[in-house]
Amino acid sequence: MTTTTAAYGVAAEGAPLDHLSIDRREIGPDDVQIDILYCGVCHTDIHFGHNDWGMTSYPLVPGHEIVGRVAATGAAVTGFALGDLVGVGCLVDSCRTCPSCKKGNEQYCEQTATQTYGSPDRHLGGTTHGGYSTMIVVDRNFVLRVPETLDTKAVAPLLCAGITTYSPLRHWNVKPGDKVGVIGLGGLGHMGVKLAAAMGAEVTMITRSPAKGEDAKKLGAHKVLLSSDAEAMAEAAGSFDFLLNTIPVGHDINPYIQLLGTDAAMAIVGAIDAIEPVMGVNLIFGRKSVAGSLIGGIAETQEMLDFCAEHGIVCDVEMIGMDEVNEAWKRVQASDVKYRFVIDLESFKAAT
Amino acid sequence: MTTTTAAYGVAAEGAPLDHLSIDRREIGPDDVQIDILYCGVCHTDIHFGHNDWGMTSYPLVPGHEIVGRVAATGAAVTGFALGDLVGVGCLVDSCRTCPSCKKGNEQYCEQTATQTYGSPDRHLGGTTHGGYSTMIVVDRNFVLRVPETLDTKAVAPLLCAGITTYSPLRHWNVKPGDKVGVIGLGGLGHMGVKLAAAMGAEVTMITRSPAKGEDAKKLGAHKVLLSSDAEAMAEAAGSFDFLLNTIPVGHDINPYIQLLGTDAAMAIVGAIDAIEPVMGVNLIFGRKSVAGSLIGGIAETQEMLDFCAEHGIVCDVEMIGMDEVNEAWKRVQASDVKYRFVIDLESFKAAT
Repeated sequence: MTTTTAAYGVAAEGAPLDHLSIDRREIGPDDVQIDILYCGVCHTDIHFGHNDWGMTSYPLVPGHEIVGRVAATGAAVTGFALGDLVGVGCLVDSCRTCPSCKKGNEQYCEQTATQTYGSPDRHLGGTTHGGYSTMIVVDRNFVLRVPETLDTKAVAPLLCAGITTYSPLRHWNVKPGDKVGVIGLGGLGHMGVKLAAAMGAEVTMITRSPAKGEDAKKLGAHKVLLSSDAEAMAEAAGSFDFLLNTIPVGHDINPYIQLLGTDAAMAIVGAIDAIEPVMGVNLIFGRKSVAGSLIGGIAETQEMLDFCAEHGIVCDVEMIGMDEVNEAWKRVQASDVKYRFVIDLESFKAAT
Repeated sequence: MTTTTAAYGVAAEGAPLDHLSIDRREIGPDDVQIDILYCGVCHTDIHFGHNDWGMTSYPLVPGHEIVGRVAATGAAVTGFALGDLVGVGCLVDSCRTCPSCKKGNEQYCEQTATQTYGSPDRHLGGTTHGGYSTMIVVDRNFVLRVPETLDTKAVAPLLCAGITTYSPLRHWNVKPGDKVGVIGLGGLGHMGVKLAAAMGAEVTMITRSPAKGEDAKKLGAHKVLLSSDAEAMAEAAGSFDFLLNTIPVGHDINPYIQLLGTDAAMAIVGAIDAIEPVMGVNLIFGRKSVAGSLIGGIAETQEMLDFCAEHGIVCDVEMIGMDEVNEAWKRVQASDVKYRFVIDLESFKAAT
């Protein structure tokens, strides 16, 4: 009751990415089988591949920025037809009954959502396998419609980098004219700039790097604030309505808290490790908040895709073949990509 | 154009509290002169007295939990009559024109509010002097009405400890049935328990001390969670709608963040110094917030006093004479008070 599928993944801890064969389940009544066209390379793939968080089971097939076409549908599936352009992001299942799921916040499922890769597989046992592969079978409720009007290959990273930045901008209610700072310019930051600008905010790129500041302006940022410029930082104190912090590692957030206006919030979407000590006084004076935010729910991810179609937004991507993934991972770690690698599955399919 | 007033304060850094003579301004058209009956002893008084925050000017007369009776009113003052029972909290002035002031958040005044003691005095120069004294002159807009139905001496600490806990409970919209945790049982924590319970919340005292847990139950807490009990803490993970953190010093907040439900917030009202590193992942999974909150605005402080009158809430206090203040400060530092010292000015007035 399974289909063997070609994939690329990490066979064992410390091994490089290489060819693997994995099993996909036969499609059930509610399933959609997807012929994968493109899969984005997310930094999380690398953390999982290297077992940085001590939770990886091998073999691991990463990839949660998947775009493809419907190859088959289960008997009970309506609304998806053969050939439809679809996407799969970070989630492929959740309990669907807890308060978070009922609110459409499947990412915060109280029973723990099933992630696209590396989660316990409820159907086959073992762990789920992601999009560095030719085909995937996903419950229809976790399949997104991808607008045909966008550049398809550049849509893939919207499924993680896009929703990770879109969701907090919406949750904290960013409105036209709001002063929004995006901290850090990488895969997440570049989407934050594009999305916040499309929402009508006055967007400031906050970075240590003048070169990144210039890049951010090309992406739609209205202003640049160099975090290394103490005078400029002091001048900007209290001036932001919302800060989207995309820095991927622990760092000192006190200088950024100082930028927040009264009652304003900073959402952390990148740093999962220890954040340097916060001075309580910096939060107390001005009733400021520091929060976290994790991707987004399924309905919100669809909303984000539709918003991107409306505003003509995609990721800036660099295309690679599967045989270039090991090198791409190294370049991601060196922040040497503008701004997301996307694997084109065509050559891989031809070779398998 | 000044009146010399007897006070008790710190003449110079390192000196004990002792008798001082200070000047109060003559009442202007908008001023109210108050004959002080009671003044609470707040831990902030001690921090200022000892110059812990490096911002103290001496001589310092502390005290920002003031209850007294109107002794005179300026020509333009309406709404206050001789003999009225009134209060003054932490603020005696603000710019009144910035967005925060216009919203009634004078505590977050963008021009910096004038604190009751230790702030630049806009009238006399030097710094403002607080309620460890027999008389004070305050602009009517910063004078609160104290309900006559409450135990007057036990009202004084409401002006700081009361509003500091009331404001975040209201701001984060605590409703009947909400699960609210109050972390720490001191002057702030004991008011947090009383106020949250009166708002209809299910209140849990979170403390390391079983004895404090029992005390909290007498104050209205429904449950006790011992933060030293790893099993109980794990069981309570994700179960709180709001946490009011009254711990007065930097500490590890990660275990408390784990107690928050999805989209829930913890407000820090006590710790102004460095808070130990927060794991980003603890905020990201569940979109949790850590925020600060500072006292409350003037209208909100009046609302709090009226709420306390409606619910029969006052502080638990231990009365002292002015000659016992040095000793009281030591006992506050040793957490040896249930839960607030209040200075009765009568004997001091008789002696001066």
